[in-house]
Amino acid sequence: MATSAFKTTDRIIDASLALFNAKGFANVPMSTIAMTVGISPGNLNYHFKSKADIVLAVYPLLQDALRQSKSAGEPFDAREGVRQLLEILRTMWRYRFFFNGLLQLLSDDRALRRRYQEMERNMVASIQAILDELIEQGDMHEIDAPNSTKILAHAWWMVWVSWLRFEQLESPRSAKPRNAALYDCIFLTVNLAQPYFVRAVVDAMLDALNAELPQSVLATARRQRLAAPKRARTARVGSSVA
Amino acid sequence: MATSAFKTTDRIIDASLALFNAKGFANVPMSTIAMTVGISPGNLNYHFKSKADIVLAVYPLLQDALRQSKSAGEPFDAREGVRQLLEILRTMWRYRFFFNGLLQLLSDDRALRRRYQEMERNMVASIQAILDELIEQGDMHEIDAPNSTKILAHAWWMVWVSWLRFEQLESPRSAKPRNAALYDCIFLTVNLAQPYFVRAVVDAMLDALNAELPQSVLATARRQRLAAPKRARTARVGSSVA
Repeated sequence: MATSAFKTTDRIIDASLALFNAKGFANVPMSTIAMTVGISPGNLNYHFKSKADIVLAVYPLLQDALRQSKSAGEPFDAREGVRQLLEILRTMWRYRFFFNGLLQLLSDDRALRRRYQEMERNMVASIQAILDELIEQGDMHEIDAPNSTKILAHAWWMVWVSWLRFEQLESPRSAKPRNAALYDCIFLTVNLAQPYFVRAVVDAMLDALNAELPQSVLATARRQRLAAPKRARTARVGSSVA
Repeated sequence: MATSAFKTTDRIIDASLALFNAKGFANVPMSTIAMTVGISPGNLNYHFKSKADIVLAVYPLLQDALRQSKSAGEPFDAREGVRQLLEILRTMWRYRFFFNGLLQLLSDDRALRRRYQEMERNMVASIQAILDELIEQGDMHEIDAPNSTKILAHAWWMVWVSWLRFEQLESPRSAKPRNAALYDCIFLTVNLAQPYFVRAVVDAMLDALNAELPQSVLATARRQRLAAPKRARTARVGSSVA
C-alpha cells in the first residue's frame, strides 16, 4: 500500500482534491492540476480525461474499503469492519467538496449526474450484499418485511453523507475530520443495525470503536454531540402525564 | 389556516423561496424581494431584518408540524403522524435551496451557521421528545443502551436531509417532490423505527402512508427506488458459500 501512494494517479488525485477543497471544483482548470503535480497536460489527460473522472475515482476507493470491511466467506472481524468504516468516512471527507456540493456540481452536467447516481446505487447495493452475507453467516437476524437489508443499507449511506455535512458545518476549515465526529458517525451506524446484529457483534464493534479512537474522545463525543440538548417538549409531556 | 396564507409574512416567504430556489440565495437582494411582493423596503424590513431571518422562518413551520404529528398526552394517531411527516418533507423541499446549499450559504456567515446548528439540535431534540413520549404511552419499546431515542432521532433527521438531496438530483427542475419520493422517505423513516415501534403502530403507519399517497405510486416507488440494483458482490458471496 505504501508504494502506491507515490503513483502518478494518486499524486494527481491528492493534488486535485486539495485544490478542489480549497478553491472549489469550478475554479480549478485541468491545466492548474497538471502544473501543481508537475506533469504535462498530455500526461494528465492520459490518466484522467476530465475533472469528472478525477472526482469519480472516489468510487473504487469506497468499494475497496467496503470489500475489506467483510471478506467474502470469512467470519466477520469487527475490528476490520470498524477500521474500514473509518477508511470510508475519511475518504468521503477527502472528497467533501464533492459530496457537499453535489447539487451545484451536478446540476449543469447531466452525464456526471447519471454517473454519480449509478455510483450511489452501487454503493447501496454493495452495503446490502454485506448485510445479506452477515445474515447468511448468522451474525445478523433476518429483517421482517417490508423492512429489509436494502432499507438499512440506504439508511447507512444517507447517514454517512449527512454526517459529512454536519462535520463540515462544525469545523469548516479543518483538513481532517475530528475523531469525535468519526466516533459519532460509526456509533450511529452500529446503533442503526443494533436490533438486527446479534448482541456479540454489536459489542465487538463498539469495543473495536473504542480501541480505534482514543477513550477521551469517546467521552467528548458522548457529552458534546450525543448528549441530550434541551428537550423542548419535556414540560408539556410531563404535565400531560402528571 | 387558509386565511394565514394571505398574510404579508407568508407572501414574503413564498416570494423569497421562489426567488432563492430559482436564482440562488446570494443573487437575490432584499430590494428584489420587496419589489416582487409589492411592498416597500421599509415594510419588508419590518417583517424580516435580513434574508437569514426569512430562511430561518422554516424552523417554526417544522416545529409546528412535529407538534401536530403527536399531540402531547393524546393517543398516537398514525394517520396524523404520516400527514405531518409529509408536511415536514414538503416544507423542507420548499426550502431546498437552503438545506441543499447549506455549506455554501453558511460558510461566510458564522452567526447564521450557529443559528442553523441550534435549529438542527432543537429539531432532533423535539423528535426525540416525541419518541420518548411514544415509549411512555406504550406505542414503542424501550431501546437498549447505548442505543437510544436520541440516536434514532438523529438518524431520522439525517435521512430527511439526505432525502432532499437525492430527490433534487433525481428531479432537479421540479417545483414539487414526486409522490414516489415522498413515499420512499416516509417508508424509510417508519422502517428505521420498526424494531422499536409496536407492530400495530408500524402497520397503522404503513396503512396511512398507502392511504395518503396513490397506490400506483407505491408500486413505482418500490420498483424503481427501493428495488434491488445489481448486487456487485453477489457472485463472490455465492461462490464463497457454495
